[in-house]
Amino acid sequence: METLDTINKRASLKTRLSPRHVEQEKIEKILDAARLAPSARNSQSWRFIVVKDKETIETLVSKAFSERNAVVSEAPVIIIACANPSDDLTIGGREYYLFNVALAVENMLLAATDLGLVTHPMTGVDEDELKKALRIPDEVRFVVATPLSYPAEGSYEEAAQERLSQRTRKDLRELVYWNAWGRSL
Amino acid sequence: METLDTINKRASLKTRLSPRHVEQEKIEKILDAARLAPSARNSQSWRFIVVKDKETIETLVSKAFSERNAVVSEAPVIIIACANPSDDLTIGGREYYLFNVALAVENMLLAATDLGLVTHPMTGVDEDELKKALRIPDEVRFVVATPLSYPAEGSYEEAAQERLSQRTRKDLRELVYWNAWGRSL
Repeated sequence: METLDTINKRASLKTRLSPRHVEQEKIEKILDAARLAPSARNSQSWRFIVVKDKETIETLVSKAFSERNAVVSEAPVIIIACANPSDDLTIGGREYYLFNVALAVENMLLAATDLGLVTHPMTGVDEDELKKALRIPDEVRFVVATPLSYPAEGSYEEAAQERLSQRTRKDLRELVYWNAWGRSL
Repeated sequence: METLDTINKRASLKTRLSPRHVEQEKIEKILDAARLAPSARNSQSWRFIVVKDKETIETLVSKAFSERNAVVSEAPVIIIACANPSDDLTIGGREYYLFNVALAVENMLLAATDLGLVTHPMTGVDEDELKKALRIPDEVRFVVATPLSYPAEGSYEEAAQERLSQRTRKDLRELVYWNAWGRSL
C-alpha cells in the first residue's frame, strides 16, 4: 500500500481479530520494520516479546490486561514492547526510551496495516503481572502491547471501515503553530 | 512509495539539506500524517511548531541547537514537536507524552520520506533557549526537532544512499524474544 494511504488507514481494531494463524514471515517483516526506526543516538533500546503460546496469552489476558482488553484473547499473536531505561538517554528528566520505543512501534503498526493485519496498541496493563508472566527483569519497563492478527472480516479495509468513520482527531489548527507558540498562519 | 519501502529508505540526513523552498501543501501533508497517529486514550498531546522564518531558524541554530546540529541552518523549515505532560497519561512513572509524540513523529518522518523530503530528528537541544526563542510555555516540554527540506542531491534516493549503506542496526535476534524474556525461537 502507498505510505500515506497506510498512515490514513491504520486503526486500532481489537474488536476485529481473527484467530487465524499469522505466518512467521509476516511477523518477522513487522519486527524488521520496527528495527529500522531511528532512535536518539541510535540507542535501539527497544525489545520485543512475541507471544504465540496460547497458554501465555491466556495468562496475560486474565492477569495482566485490563478487562476492556480481554477481547484480545482471540489473537494468535501478542507483541509486547519494552525497554531498559538505562539503555537510553534521559535529558532534563525526559526518558527517551519511551520516545524511541514508540518510533519503532509506529513502524510496526504501519507495516502490519500494509500487510492487511490488525493491531491495537494497549497501555492499560498491570506491569507487575505482565513482567511476572513473561519473566521480564525488574529494570526493564513495559511500554505497550498489541495483538497482531488477520481481520475477522474478509479484508483490512472492511474491518477498519466503521472505526475509521468514527475517528476523532483534533484539527491541525489546534495542533500546529507557526514560527512561535500560539501563532496561527 | 510503498510503505515497507519508505520505512526501509527513511534516514536521518541533516548533511543533505537543500535551501530550496518547500511547498506549504507538502508541509501540511506531513503534519496531517502526524495528526493521524494513535495515542494512548486518544490524548493527542502532540503540538508542533513549524518554523519557516529565517531569523528564528538562525536563533535556534545559534542558541538552542548543539554545534553538531548547526548544519540545519540550511533548512527552509524546522519542525519542533513538544507536549504538555499533564495533557497525557503517566502510568507507573512512565510519561506517555514522550511515547505518543513519537508515534506522530514517526508518521511525519515517513510521510516526508514518501514525498522525497529530508528530515533528521534531533534531541541535542538546549530546551530553555529553544522555549525562549519560540515562546513555549513553562509547562510544555520539548521532545524533538527536525529540519524539513528537499535533498541537496537530485533525488531522495541519491541523498540517502551513502547513509543507508552505513546504517547500523542490531540483529532481530538481539531485539526479539519469543513467549518469554530471553527466549530465542
